[in-house]
Amino acid sequence: MAKPKKTPRPKAQTPKGFRDYFGAEVSQRAEMLQKIAGVYHRYGFDALESSGVETVEALGKFLPDVDRPNEGVFAWQEDADADKPGDWLALRYDLTAPLARVYAQHQNDLPKPYRRYAMGPVWRNEKPGPGRFRQFYQCDADTVGASSVAADAEICAMLCDCLEAVGIERGDYVVRLNNRKVLNGIMEVAGLLDPTTPEKFAHERGIVLRAIDKIDRLGPSGVSQLLEDGRTDESGDFTAGAGLSREQANKVMSFIAATTNVLNDMQEDHPQEDQWPDFLRLATEHPEEFKTRMLDYLEGIVAGSKLGVEGVGELRQIANLLQAQDYGPDRIRIDPSVVRGLGYYTGPVYEAELTFEIQDEKGRTRNFGSVAGGGRYDDLVKRFTGQEVPATGVSIGVDRLLAALHAKGRLDTTDVGPVVVTVMDRDRMADYQAMVAELRQAGIRAEVYLGNPKNFGNQLKYADTRNSPVAVIEGGDEHEKGVVQIKDLILGAEIAKSATLEEWKDRPSQFEVPRADLVAKVREILAQHGLEK
Amino acid sequence: MAKPKKTPRPKAQTPKGFRDYFGAEVSQRAEMLQKIAGVYHRYGFDALESSGVETVEALGKFLPDVDRPNEGVFAWQEDADADKPGDWLALRYDLTAPLARVYAQHQNDLPKPYRRYAMGPVWRNEKPGPGRFRQFYQCDADTVGASSVAADAEICAMLCDCLEAVGIERGDYVVRLNNRKVLNGIMEVAGLLDPTTPEKFAHERGIVLRAIDKIDRLGPSGVSQLLEDGRTDESGDFTAGAGLSREQANKVMSFIAATTNVLNDMQEDHPQEDQWPDFLRLATEHPEEFKTRMLDYLEGIVAGSKLGVEGVGELRQIANLLQAQDYGPDRIRIDPSVVRGLGYYTGPVYEAELTFEIQDEKGRTRNFGSVAGGGRYDDLVKRFTGQEVPATGVSIGVDRLLAALHAKGRLDTTDVGPVVVTVMDRDRMADYQAMVAELRQAGIRAEVYLGNPKNFGNQLKYADTRNSPVAVIEGGDEHEKGVVQIKDLILGAEIAKSATLEEWKDRPSQFEVPRADLVAKVREILAQHGLEK
Repeated sequence: MAKPKKTPRPKAQTPKGFRDYFGAEVSQRAEMLQKIAGVYHRYGFDALESSGVETVEALGKFLPDVDRPNEGVFAWQEDADADKPGDWLALRYDLTAPLARVYAQHQNDLPKPYRRYAMGPVWRNEKPGPGRFRQFYQCDADTVGASSVAADAEICAMLCDCLEAVGIERGDYVVRLNNRKVLNGIMEVAGLLDPTTPEKFAHERGIVLRAIDKIDRLGPSGVSQLLEDGRTDESGDFTAGAGLSREQANKVMSFIAATTNVLNDMQEDHPQEDQWPDFLRLATEHPEEFKTRMLDYLEGIVAGSKLGVEGVGELRQIANLLQAQDYGPDRIRIDPSVVRGLGYYTGPVYEAELTFEIQDEKGRTRNFGSVAGGGRYDDLVKRFTGQEVPATGVSIGVDRLLAALHAKGRLDTTDVGPVVVTVMDRDRMADYQAMVAELRQAGIRAEVYLGNPKNFGNQLKYADTRNSPVAVIEGGDEHEKGVVQIKDLILGAEIAKSATLEEWKDRPSQFEVPRADLVAKVREILAQHGLEK
Repeated sequence: MAKPKKTPRPKAQTPKGFRDYFGAEVSQRAEMLQKIAGVYHRYGFDALESSGVETVEALGKFLPDVDRPNEGVFAWQEDADADKPGDWLALRYDLTAPLARVYAQHQNDLPKPYRRYAMGPVWRNEKPGPGRFRQFYQCDADTVGASSVAADAEICAMLCDCLEAVGIERGDYVVRLNNRKVLNGIMEVAGLLDPTTPEKFAHERGIVLRAIDKIDRLGPSGVSQLLEDGRTDESGDFTAGAGLSREQANKVMSFIAATTNVLNDMQEDHPQEDQWPDFLRLATEHPEEFKTRMLDYLEGIVAGSKLGVEGVGELRQIANLLQAQDYGPDRIRIDPSVVRGLGYYTGPVYEAELTFEIQDEKGRTRNFGSVAGGGRYDDLVKRFTGQEVPATGVSIGVDRLLAALHAKGRLDTTDVGPVVVTVMDRDRMADYQAMVAELRQAGIRAEVYLGNPKNFGNQLKYADTRNSPVAVIEGGDEHEKGVVQIKDLILGAEIAKSATLEEWKDRPSQFEVPRADLVAKVREILAQHGLEK
């Protein structure tokens, strides 16, 4: 007879690409989400929470003839009912697709425009990489049903307020603003877009957009090559170009170089002000002039395209609205090199970038880069209802923002642990519990050591692992005398570190106080370390 | 040639059993979670957030030979790699199974005991019903690695603090406490548990536990029938019994009736105090006596069982610890009829019940019932590591608690909307945006109407839908005069409701103030309605 197989123990592991978050990581994210929600709420947006699960049909990213629709998302088929096959369900991959579904489903009950914010995890079935996880948080705000670009302007301003609310200082970020209509306008004047047959040259336009997106990495000459005949990189690989003539390519290049060209023109008229090394100083010091020049410059380039001129007009409206609220180019700046990947944007697009430098995992200095982005998408609800509903919105990458604040040293990663009441006599557990109850009632984080109390060293080691500021000790002697010993663990650690210094020797880190003074003494020590509530 | 099929429009619908939450529903839940997290944190618990997705292997609820392991959970198989089949993944169905995985995975880095709290959605692939959804929130705290029942006592106390922190008043809840060891003890004395062959009579014990759980519904005689030969209900359906003799069944019945019997005994010794109609008044007024009598009573019943006596001893320890912190039977009460469904509990079990009555959906009066529960489970981590790790913890059903507060009228369901600045002249949008910017900087929730401004009535209707307290109007005339009109919409609605009353006629609800006084006047109106921040 075959021996029964022993079931092997399950592996205690997160699935590939998922991770656990501990202590301060969790509370810092919760705090950040709360601050951003506060700004969204003050701007008049209402909270919405949809579930993590949607029908694949509503998410709408899939081909109906694919057997297993799981490209990029986590999807599964429900069990079949008696009479029909089960629905395909999926985890949401962003918060915008569910918003479109919610708006279409509840539109009769929703105010118009509908302004909502949402925050929560989203899931992507993609190859994980360093710092790239398959579950991460998004924090979005959208206005659905407003065609006015005032809605876009407002979201750019709100994005600035959010960044400052979570601790990104003014000057450490910029919201870069562009317009898909302007991008399409430049395509039109470069001969890559015929408004009567918009599908023509779609492939070439893709090459141009991707080339613009790479300007920081490839520089002007590399981008020029991609606009014309193509480019061979250092490894010898060839990337096909968009096939523009030199003249057409120059038009696109003068578009991408708008900021540099406008600033150089300004420099000529302000010869006494040297803009270097802060390239953008002239723009921030003469915001009105920069705005006017930039918009006139762009209008000049797209002059042959009705769509392009309309797009520049929208940017002008947005810039005027923002200036009226004092959001100048030091915070929000028109920048024609902003593309934004997603195909569905139809008007203004915006992206928040952190401008400070950090060290990457290989020790190289680089700009931190994008932490939020969004734009106008007028076709998303149409899938459901047939009606075009104008919408615009932003998504803030909370995990990226947290990483940025960590990189700048602006988040304290250590959680302050509880006051630990040690157990000297396990029969007097009730006395120790009464102590923590008193401390907690005074609002002080506290706990009794609940492990095996036999080894007292383990209790202090536990307090150390928990990063506890204070330990309380009451043995039999203390109990008889009606006192407790209170150990200042922070001071104790400092003394231990600098034991050679004379000055520490006179500072005791352990105090005997009457039992009745327990709470007062603990509070005093916490206050000395700036830890009072 | 066949005509190409037209793709039908997708249905805008949540999947069956899921729902959307709007506005105050979202913020009230967030606030409740934050309050509970505050209590957990003060008790020394650290935050943990694991992802919604786990491997089916780690969740460990499934038979290895089932092709599609989706009983009760949402599960799917990852795409196969080149050399091996894809893993089965699933959405977590609670927060305890992931904790066991986390503890086993990270145990070398975690403090011992490990005290963590976690909050977030969980998913169940079950048939949805009224008020029962397939995604809902849990909010848990657990102590892993503490065998002392002091850990259980602490969690019972913390549960009381949580309920009071979210607005359940003392007297409106009770935490009922039992011990699986005592339940097993009564099984042993009733002849349904032989410690040397514990698997014997498992079926009968299941019948007894389910019968105890139904005492409220079936009453003593119905439960007696189930303990003995079985019971035929009103519809004629027969439920098989556990097959106990009358004598054995009486032992179990005297166990279930412990509270009544103990209180009746107490009544004899306190003849001057009438415990009716508040059945438990004697217990709450003589907590020490009730505790001693209850424990002695239970000890008498399980006297023949070593396990049972041990269990009563644990309850005695817990009750003493709680009494030292002043948690008496008005808040936490030993109650032998608490069973708790899950099979994995091994020691103390506890359940928080709201004691007030509500109207159910059919208008019937009933007790609100259970909102939280937990207990000791010493075997959960063993699956991964082979080592037994003692653990105890509680799970609070946040959505149930919110429903309870709503039913009691203790949560205001209406969100206060933003101040709405109307658009009289769309060319002066910048002026209107400047107004909301000022209001927001003063901390006042405000927005410009961003829909089509042509129909002014629609703008006021919008303000009404948003439940806005104030509307601001500045037309051309006002602009020239340097004033704004400020409409008190709350007062306006009151006047409209009681238009016949003379007293209202003299109270204007619209005020003309200098533009510079906009913020001050809005703030004054908000303050009059108790809405200042």
